Amino acid sequence: VTYTLAEIAARVGGTVRGDAGRRVAGIRPLDQAGPDDLSFLGHPRYRRAAADSRAAGIIAAGADLPSGRNAIVVDDPYVALAAAMELFHPAERAAPGVSPQAIVGEGTRLGQGVSLGPLVVVGRRCVLSDRSVLMPGVVLGDDVAVGADSVLHPGVVVYARSILGARVTVHAGSVIGSDGFGYAGAGTESRAKIPQVGNVVIEDDVEIGACVTVDRATFGSTVVGRGTKIDNLVQVAHNVVIGEGSILVAQSGIAGSTRLGRGVILAGQSGAAGHLTLGDRAVVGAKSAVLQDLQPGAFVLGSPAVDHRAWKREQASLRRLPDLLRRVARLERALAGLASGTGVRTVKPRTAARRSRSGGAGRGGRRAG
Amino acid sequence: VTYTLAEIAARVGGTVRGDAGRRVAGIRPLDQAGPDDLSFLGHPRYRRAAADSRAAGIIAAGADLPSGRNAIVVDDPYVALAAAMELFHPAERAAPGVSPQAIVGEGTRLGQGVSLGPLVVVGRRCVLSDRSVLMPGVVLGDDVAVGADSVLHPGVVVYARSILGARVTVHAGSVIGSDGFGYAGAGTESRAKIPQVGNVVIEDDVEIGACVTVDRATFGSTVVGRGTKIDNLVQVAHNVVIGEGSILVAQSGIAGSTRLGRGVILAGQSGAAGHLTLGDRAVVGAKSAVLQDLQPGAFVLGSPAVDHRAWKREQASLRRLPDLLRRVARLERALAGLASGTGVRTVKPRTAARRSRSGGAGRGGRRAG
Amino acid sequence: VTYTLAEIAARVGGTVRGDAGRRVAGIRPLDQAGPDDLSFLGHPRYRRAAADSRAAGIIAAGADLPSGRNAIVVDDPYVALAAAMELFHPAERAAPGVSPQAIVGEGTRLGQGVSLGPLVVVGRRCVLSDRSVLMPGVVLGDDVAVGADSVLHPGVVVYARSILGARVTVHAGSVIGSDGFGYAGAGTESRAKIPQVGNVVIEDDVEIGACVTVDRATFGSTVVGRGTKIDNLVQVAHNVVIGEGSILVAQSGIAGSTRLGRGVILAGQSGAAGHLTLGDRAVVGAKSAVLQDLQPGAFVLGSPAVDHRAWKREQASLRRLPDLLRRVARLERALAGLASGTGVRTVKPRTAARRSRSGGAGRGGRRAG
Repeated sequence: VTYTLAEIAARVGGTVRGDAGRRVAGIRPLDQAGPDDLSFLGHPRYRRAAADSRAAGIIAAGADLPSGRNAIVVDDPYVALAAAMELFHPAERAAPGVSPQAIVGEGTRLGQGVSLGPLVVVGRRCVLSDRSVLMPGVVLGDDVAVGADSVLHPGVVVYARSILGARVTVHAGSVIGSDGFGYAGAGTESRAKIPQVGNVVIEDDVEIGACVTVDRATFGSTVVGRGTKIDNLVQVAHNVVIGEGSILVAQSGIAGSTRLGRGVILAGQSGAAGHLTLGDRAVVGAKSAVLQDLQPGAFVLGSPAVDHRAWKREQASLRRLPDLLRRVARLERALAGLASGTGVRTVKPRTAARRSRSGGAGRGGRRAG
Repeated sequence: VTYTLAEIAARVGGTVRGDAGRRVAGIRPLDQAGPDDLSFLGHPRYRRAAADSRAAGIIAAGADLPSGRNAIVVDDPYVALAAAMELFHPAERAAPGVSPQAIVGEGTRLGQGVSLGPLVVVGRRCVLSDRSVLMPGVVLGDDVAVGADSVLHPGVVVYARSILGARVTVHAGSVIGSDGFGYAGAGTESRAKIPQVGNVVIEDDVEIGACVTVDRATFGSTVVGRGTKIDNLVQVAHNVVIGEGSILVAQSGIAGSTRLGRGVILAGQSGAAGHLTLGDRAVVGAKSAVLQDLQPGAFVLGSPAVDHRAWKREQASLRRLPDLLRRVARLERALAGLASGTGVRTVKPRTAARRSRSGGAGRGGRRAG
Repeated sequence: VTYTLAEIAARVGGTVRGDAGRRVAGIRPLDQAGPDDLSFLGHPRYRRAAADSRAAGIIAAGADLPSGRNAIVVDDPYVALAAAMELFHPAERAAPGVSPQAIVGEGTRLGQGVSLGPLVVVGRRCVLSDRSVLMPGVVLGDDVAVGADSVLHPGVVVYARSILGARVTVHAGSVIGSDGFGYAGAGTESRAKIPQVGNVVIEDDVEIGACVTVDRATFGSTVVGRGTKIDNLVQVAHNVVIGEGSILVAQSGIAGSTRLGRGVILAGQSGAAGHLTLGDRAVVGAKSAVLQDLQPGAFVLGSPAVDHRAWKREQASLRRLPDLLRRVARLERALAGLASGTGVRTVKPRTAARRSRSGGAGRGGRRAG
């Protein structure tokens, strides 16, 4: 299958500069594209690579256009890339139909074009809407709902009463609706499990990565808001509510009852403590730990997380701390000399001293470590 | 099903204040409870919510009783809640029996009332005790023992020779008994796998979350002590020994051969290095990393983890470090002036200076970042 | 089965000191070994345990030999241990053959001696080489290749077009080839998924732990280099390339497009940001976060990770920071007194002051926290 640049431009909402009739057969990165490929320029730092690319045409923003090249000019090259790739790589759909090796419980209703692979186990009274796909080895508990066009990859487990919306994707090995982590009693002998009688609600257009865990609520629902994207190995605890369009990067985690606004981003390996509120569009940096509420639009880093500017300032200062200890000791000696009248050591202002002492800082530091 | 407050009080070991004959049909949080619901007051900060609640009765500690309300007075509202919830939400038990689509190896013995769901695979010479439940898709290796009343959720994998006690729950996707991470040889070419010939022992009353990994021992056993509760996505390495009644919160991890005492708590995303001993009731804060032995009762924070008081002190100091750098530079200039006799800059004591310089600290900090 | 020390020495490339004809029936740690067991001394700190052990013989390096004991003298005791253990614990191989309850797609080719357990699902056009083993519940997508002598443990899921080399082991619950985490569009409403059309390549002799996720590339391949060992719950994002013989310890993660050289080590719970290059033999300490390229041989710690010496220096300094704040305040007051001529406070040099003020530091710190 090939498309002209004009056809692709129409699809992605861009305009062609150069040869609109040029045909391309695929999409590849700038350095791998051949004369039959379309490519894309996602960041100005790759302008040189764009100039050197053998691609037949390049998707790019207007400000970054390489001169003398066929191009499809767009506002956001990545959004255009996503649309163009769907032309060349339409999503493979599992064939509709119920495998003879699938097991479906009583009272479960299947919509049009549902696909149940072999070794799928569906509980009782479930509702699988049109064109939903359960790949091999998926297990659903009783009373689970899966919305239209949703896809559950192999080995996904969904506990009873969970509700998944339309166009939801869950990757292999993820677990939706397992019990929240709730026990009563402080003693090691007397811990009693608090029954977790709520459920999980995954709204429309959510994508969940591999080996993700989303716990059911103690009461009510744990909610993953519409359009939210969750990467691999993420933990979402009981009674968490995640607003629309949020992003949880790999290995991040949210403790119980914390609420995220819309468009919140948790970067990789970050975490949020329980019972917090993270405002709309708040961003938590990689490996950071949020221990208090965040205002809308906040950008925090560190563990505990603080405003990103304060964090950078502190980190820069921390690099200078070993030397600072020596400077203060020197000041103390000098001032003791002045105060006692027994003699005054020379103290150089810092700007002059910095150059001459950098080697010494290193040596002293090694002793300190 | 409904119960009177008197019936519930008898069950949870409390006393009724108000109308002991009042009937309730369910349990709900204070803000969601209706006139047919029982509710609970778990923390004094919700006293106002308790006063405003429409609940028919409230489980509460004596010191927190809302005036003029029916109440069940108890010592620990959460323990009472756990007991009361079991009245209204008795644990659902899988129907006993062996699915015709389950596969059971030679020499395996099944107790009374065992439930094997479809697509379960059990190895040879296993022992499944009375009323144990293997949900769909569970796989057990050879020579595995599962104690009475234990429940393995869908997709759990238990490697050969693992031993699980009574009333153990393992949630979906968890892996018990996979090989410990042990290799010999430093070179990239010559790494040799050290066979992991030990096993895993899970004692009675342990609950393990979803997508948890517990590795088998190199020699001997990796042990999870009685009554310990493990949250989702936790890693327990080979030869770890966890004492009774410990708590491992989500995404925490314990490296090889480390020993935890009784009632140890690892908060979310925390970790302990290998070959350590963590004393009874030691507490490791969220995202902290323990790199040395902990005394019984220790409470540590940070990475590397230090005593929680020292950590808080350091964190408070760290917030002031960028400003401290400027203060020391100022002192150096002032002292240089004094010492050289060329002029003395005014130096204000810190208490006076703090107010006047807070703006400058911010501006300077941004440059430093 | 028993072996003489001479037979074992020949197998592990060592020499016997003492009774070469002494027979042993197993291998056990020093403190557990009986008179029929071989044991091993892996570190000088266990010399005393070696002297006290009841073992019939001890594998040890020449420098650590316990006097008066039968010994097998080797260069690297752990490498020798690995080889000796294989004598006593030969890897159990699944019986060859295809279970009648396995499902194999059209066009898939099976080599000699392949073992497919029950409830295995293999897609179309796959290639399973000689003696490869798919344990119960493994699911392979279409066009997957598995090399000779590779073993996939129960519940492993491999997405379409992934390529696994020879002698690869993947433990239970791991997911190879799920979609990379790539979306376009900053707004919460407009996020578009970028199709992930690349694949995963796992080279020969790789071992992957339980519940590990390795994402497919957006374009091209995510690559895990030959001989690399990956522990449990590790995340490898799309387009990552890992060199030969690297080590990724439990719960570590690598963000998209980052490249690791040969022999790189990521310790437990550590992470590397995206689009970085980590040079050969670079070592990232536990819980550290790499935010910039690393030179070959670098050893970094912290979050953000810095050279390990600098990190230790900073940590040592940080312990002293609360006290430093008090020292600077004291200097400021003293200097203000000097400068104004209103009086001079006594300032003691630090070495003298340290002893007398340690108690005060503690009290002040608690207020600061």
